[in-house]
Amino acid sequence: MMDETIKVDVSNKIMTITLNRPDKLNAYNRQMQNDFMHALDRADSDDEVRVVIVTGEGRAFCAGADLEKGGETFGFEDSIEEHRDGGGILALRIYELKKPIIAAINGPAVGIGATMTLPMDVRIASDKAKMGFVFARRGITQEACSGWFLPRIVGISQAMEWVSTGRIFKAEEALETGLVSKVVPPEELMDTAVSLGREIADNTSAISVALSRQLMWKMMGADHPMEAHKIESKYLYWVGKREDAREGINSFLEKREPNFNMKPSTDMPEFYPWWEERTFKS
Amino acid sequence: MMDETIKVDVSNKIMTITLNRPDKLNAYNRQMQNDFMHALDRADSDDEVRVVIVTGEGRAFCAGADLEKGGETFGFEDSIEEHRDGGGILALRIYELKKPIIAAINGPAVGIGATMTLPMDVRIASDKAKMGFVFARRGITQEACSGWFLPRIVGISQAMEWVSTGRIFKAEEALETGLVSKVVPPEELMDTAVSLGREIADNTSAISVALSRQLMWKMMGADHPMEAHKIESKYLYWVGKREDAREGINSFLEKREPNFNMKPSTDMPEFYPWWEERTFKS
Amino acid sequence: MMDETIKVDVSNKIMTITLNRPDKLNAYNRQMQNDFMHALDRADSDDEVRVVIVTGEGRAFCAGADLEKGGETFGFEDSIEEHRDGGGILALRIYELKKPIIAAINGPAVGIGATMTLPMDVRIASDKAKMGFVFARRGITQEACSGWFLPRIVGISQAMEWVSTGRIFKAEEALETGLVSKVVPPEELMDTAVSLGREIADNTSAISVALSRQLMWKMMGADHPMEAHKIESKYLYWVGKREDAREGINSFLEKREPNFNMKPSTDMPEFYPWWEERTFKS
Repeated sequence: MMDETIKVDVSNKIMTITLNRPDKLNAYNRQMQNDFMHALDRADSDDEVRVVIVTGEGRAFCAGADLEKGGETFGFEDSIEEHRDGGGILALRIYELKKPIIAAINGPAVGIGATMTLPMDVRIASDKAKMGFVFARRGITQEACSGWFLPRIVGISQAMEWVSTGRIFKAEEALETGLVSKVVPPEELMDTAVSLGREIADNTSAISVALSRQLMWKMMGADHPMEAHKIESKYLYWVGKREDAREGINSFLEKREPNFNMKPSTDMPEFYPWWEERTFKS
Repeated sequence: MMDETIKVDVSNKIMTITLNRPDKLNAYNRQMQNDFMHALDRADSDDEVRVVIVTGEGRAFCAGADLEKGGETFGFEDSIEEHRDGGGILALRIYELKKPIIAAINGPAVGIGATMTLPMDVRIASDKAKMGFVFARRGITQEACSGWFLPRIVGISQAMEWVSTGRIFKAEEALETGLVSKVVPPEELMDTAVSLGREIADNTSAISVALSRQLMWKMMGADHPMEAHKIESKYLYWVGKREDAREGINSFLEKREPNFNMKPSTDMPEFYPWWEERTFKS
Repeated sequence: MMDETIKVDVSNKIMTITLNRPDKLNAYNRQMQNDFMHALDRADSDDEVRVVIVTGEGRAFCAGADLEKGGETFGFEDSIEEHRDGGGILALRIYELKKPIIAAINGPAVGIGATMTLPMDVRIASDKAKMGFVFARRGITQEACSGWFLPRIVGISQAMEWVSTGRIFKAEEALETGLVSKVVPPEELMDTAVSLGREIADNTSAISVALSRQLMWKMMGADHPMEAHKIESKYLYWVGKREDAREGINSFLEKREPNFNMKPSTDMPEFYPWWEERTFKS
C-alpha cells in the first residue's frame, strides 16, 4: 500500500508507517499530515494492527517542516482565532490512539520531526540519529503540543535547555536524558522496534493494552490518584467477567501461551471512552 | 504481634509490616488488604512509629492477587457503579499516610505486588527481586491507582513499555529506570531500609515530615506553584512559633543533636488536613 | 553596579546576579530577597539581558535563611491568613521570568539556598557544592514552592527521601538524580554557565525563547495537551508573520547566522500573557 507521502505496511500484527519523501529528508507538509492521520485511523479500526512503528525512508527520519515557501512558510492565511497548528493536530491524534506506537528514529529528527515523536509511547534511535528542538533558531515557536509533552518526558530543565538553545544533539544525549530508551546501530533499528512490537502483540490482550494506553496518558493530567481509582475500578469489574480475563488467568495457571480473542474494534466496554473529549474551542 | 496475613513489628521507631503468606508467595487477598489497612491506621496514630517498612516473608515480596478462584478471580459480585478495586483502596490509604513508607522488595513483586509499592515513598530491592506489571498478559487491567502513580515515577514511556508488554524484569532494570533507588544483596536489604528509616527517625521533627509528605504528594496534582505557596506559607507561619522550630534552630546553632517533642497524634495544626478529601463518588 | 546584598553585572547579553554576603555564607534575608526581585525586574525589562546567571560570592552559594534571630527566626508578626513565605515570593517571581535563568552553584546551597534554584531552568554545580533540603532537621517546613517544584524535577521518591531525612548531599548525588545537569571543577563553573548562556544569546530569537519559557512552565500544570495546542497555535500564527520568523528561516536557507531584532520589552504578542494570573488570595 502506497500513499503520496508515507508508506504503510501491515504484517504480522505490526503496522509500519514510513515517512516517504526521502529526497526532501521526509520534510513534513500538509499532505503528509493527512496521510499520517488516515493511517492512524486505520490502525485504530483494524484489529490486525496491534502495534504501530513509525520510521523514515532514506537517511533522515524527518528534517522538519517543509520550508519550500521560505520566510513565508508560517504565514498562515486563516485567522489567529481559527488557526490550528498542524503538528498539534497530529500529536493529539497520536495521543488518542488505542494501539502502542513506537518511533524508530533512523536519522535526523528535527523540529516537527522531533516533536511528532513525543506523544508516541517509546522512542528508539539509530546511532546515526540527531535530534533538535530548533524553533528558537528559526525565529518561530515550538509546536505539536511539545509544550505539554516535552517537559513530562525529559523534565522541565532539559526541555528548557534544548528549546532555549535550539541546538542539535546526538542520539547518545537523547539516551542519557531519557528522550529515547535505546540507541542501536542502524542495521538493528527496525529489528529492535519490531521485537518490542512482537512482545506486545504475541503476549497480551489488545483490550487490556488499549485501556491502559488511554488510562495512563489521560492520568498524566489528573490531579489525584482517586481519578485513576474510579476508572480502574470500572475497568477491572468489566474485564474481570470477560473472556480475555478467563483466558489470561487460566493460561497462566496452566502454564501455556494465552490465546486472546477480544477485539478493540467491537469489544471495548460501553463506558469507553470514559473521558470528556477536549475541544479546541473552549 | 501477629495478624493472619501480615506480621507487624514496631521497634526503635520503625514499624515493619511483613507480608506473611510465604507458602502462597504472599499472594494478596481481601484479608491481607484489611490487615494492611489496620496496620497503617496504627502507624498513623502511634507516635512511636516514625517510619514504616514493608517487606515479604520467604522468597517473594508479593506474587500478585491470589488466583485460587482461577478464571473467576475478578468476577466481582457487586455492580460496576459500586465496585472499588481493592488494590486502589490500599494505594489511596498509603497515599494519605503521615509517615514515610519504604518498600524493601525482597523477591518477586508482580501485579498488585508491584503496584502496591508505587505510593510508597522509597523502593529498595534485593538483587533477587523481579518485578512486573503483568496485567495485559492475564487479560485484565492495571490497578491500585497505578495509572496515576506509575507514569509519575518512571515516566510515561517506560510505564507504557512495561504495561503494554506485561513482561517481568529484574532489579537491575528497576534501578536503571528509577523504579527503585537502590539494589543490594539480599542479606543487606533490611539493613539498608532500616538505616534510611533511622536517618529520618533520629534527626527530624515528626511534624515537619508529616506535613511535607502530604504537601509533596498533594502538589503532584496541583496546577500551579502558587498552590504550594499558599500551604507552605501557612505551614511556616504555624510551625515557626512552635517548640520544634525553636529546638531545631537552637540545636543547630549550638551544634548539638535536636530533641524534637511534638507529636503527629496531637500536635498537627488546626488547618490540617488543608485539602478537601477526594471521594469515590463524584 | 552594587546592591547591599547582591552584585548585578550585565555584559555581553548575560546578567550575572551574585549573592553577596560572603561573611554570612550569603545567608538569605528580606533585603536580599528585595534586591533579587529588583534585579529580576530589570532582567525582564532590559532587552540587553538575554540570560540570567545566579551564583554566590566566596565559598558558599547560599547557606540558607539568616538565623541571626535564633529560635525566633520564623516567629512572624503578621497573621496566618496574611503571611506569605518570602522564599515563595521569590520562587514565583523566577517562575514568571521571561529570560532563561541558570544557577551556577559554587558551594553549599542549603535550605532556601537549595529551594531558590528549583524554579531556575538549569542548575550547574561545582564539585565543591553540597545541597540539602534540611527543613525537617530544623523543625520547620519546606518553602519557596519546593513542594511543587522539587517532585517535578527529581521525582517524588527522591524528593521525599531528601526532605524527610533533611540530609546534606554532594554535587555528585545531585548530578546522578538530575537535580543538577552538570558538575565541573570550581574554576570551570562560571565558564560553563556563561557558555550555555552564550549559546542561547547568540543563536536564538528572544521572543521565541520568552514564549517557550512561559509555555513549558505553565504547561507543567495543564491537564491535557490540548491546552498546549491552543496556545502554540496562536504563537505560531502570530510569530509566523513576523520579522524574526522570516529572518530565522531565511538565514537557515542561506546558511548564515541569523540576526534577530524583535524585543521582549516591546514586541510580545497582544495576547501575552495568555494565562490568568494566579493570586495568593482565592
